[in-house]
Amino acid sequence: MERTRQLIADTAIALFSEQGFDATTVEQIAAAAEVGPRTVYRYYPTKEALVVRFTEDTLNTALEELRALPEEVPLPQALFEVVDSVRRTVEGDSERRKVVYRIIVRTRSLHAELRAVNWLWRESLAEEIGRRTEGRTADMVAALAAANVAAVVEIAVAEWARSEETGALGLAVERALALLRTGEVPVPTPTSTPPPAPTSA
Amino acid sequence: MERTRQLIADTAIALFSEQGFDATTVEQIAAAAEVGPRTVYRYYPTKEALVVRFTEDTLNTALEELRALPEEVPLPQALFEVVDSVRRTVEGDSERRKVVYRIIVRTRSLHAELRAVNWLWRESLAEEIGRRTEGRTADMVAALAAANVAAVVEIAVAEWARSEETGALGLAVERALALLRTGEVPVPTPTSTPPPAPTSA
Repeated sequence: MERTRQLIADTAIALFSEQGFDATTVEQIAAAAEVGPRTVYRYYPTKEALVVRFTEDTLNTALEELRALPEEVPLPQALFEVVDSVRRTVEGDSERRKVVYRIIVRTRSLHAELRAVNWLWRESLAEEIGRRTEGRTADMVAALAAANVAAVVEIAVAEWARSEETGALGLAVERALALLRTGEVPVPTPTSTPPPAPTSA
Repeated sequence: MERTRQLIADTAIALFSEQGFDATTVEQIAAAAEVGPRTVYRYYPTKEALVVRFTEDTLNTALEELRALPEEVPLPQALFEVVDSVRRTVEGDSERRKVVYRIIVRTRSLHAELRAVNWLWRESLAEEIGRRTEGRTADMVAALAAANVAAVVEIAVAEWARSEETGALGLAVERALALLRTGEVPVPTPTSTPPPAPTSA
C-alpha cells in the first residue's frame, strides 16, 4: 500500500513537472502509474493533495519531533530542532523537493493549499509551544514564536528554491536565525520609546 | 457610486451576521439594499469579497501610509506606523469590525481568502521594507521584518476579537511589540551556540 502511494506521488510529480499541473489529469497519472483513477483518488482525494502532501509530511514530522522532546529542553533549542527537522527532510530529497516547490509557486490553487497547510502548522506549533511556556503572556509569546519559526522556514525555503548550490537551505536558515538573534530585524517601535541606554547595547 | 458600494457592504454584513454567511444569497443582499444583483456583482465580484474587502482596505491603507513616509524615518518607527494605522482603522469602526472578524473565522472560504490577502500584504510590505533597507542581507531582513509586522497584527487582532474591552487592540499590540523588543520571544538556537556573555545580558 505504501509503495503504491509512493509510486502514484512520484509518477504525478514527474508528469506535473513535464506538462504542467493544470494540464495533467488524474486519468493520465493513473495510466502512467498503472493503477485505476479510483486508486489515485483513494490515496489523494484532490490533485492538489498529490503535491501539497510533501509539505504537509515535512511539517508534520517536524511538529512530531517537537512533541517528542522532553519538556526540560529549553525552548530556543527545541525550536531549533523544528527548523532543523524541516531542513533535513528537504535536503534529503532535494532534487524532487525543488521540482515540487516550483510547481507550487507556479499554480494558483496549490499556492492557496500551501498557505492553508502553513497556517494550520503555525497554529499547532503555537499550541505546543504554549504548553511549554509559562507566565501571563504565554499564549502571545507562543503565537509570536510560532510565527517566527514559520517565517524562517518559509523564507529560507524560498531562498533555497531560487539557489542552485547544495547546502543552500542550511545556509539560508543559519542566516535568518542569526539576523533574528542579533536583533538586526527591525521591530516596530513608537517614536516615544527612549533608545536603549548605551550600557545595555 | 461610493454610497451605493457602502450601502451594499453594510447591508451584506448585517445579513451575514443575522443569518450566516453561507445561508445568505447575493439576491437577498440586492433586495435588502434595493439594487439589482448585477449591481452587487459589479462592486463585489464574489460574496467573499464583500467581507474580506474590509481587511483588504485596512491593510492597503497601512501599506500606503508606509509608502508615503520619508525614507529618513528609521524603519522601527516606520513599521510602528504600519501597525498603528491598522489599529486606528479597526478601532474607528470597532463594532462592525468585530462582526466581520467573527464571520470570517467561522467561514471556511472566507478564512482562505483572508489568508491570501494577508499573504499578499506581507509580500508587498517586504518589498517596501526592502527598498528602505541596506546591506547584503536586505531582502531577508525585509522578509523577516514583514513577517513580524504581519504576525503582530494577526495575533493582536485575534486577541482583540476575543475581548470585550475598549482599547483592547491597542493593548494587545503594545504587549506583542514589547515581547518582541525585549527578546522574550524564544528564537530557534542550536545547542552549540554559546549563551550570551553575562556582560551583554
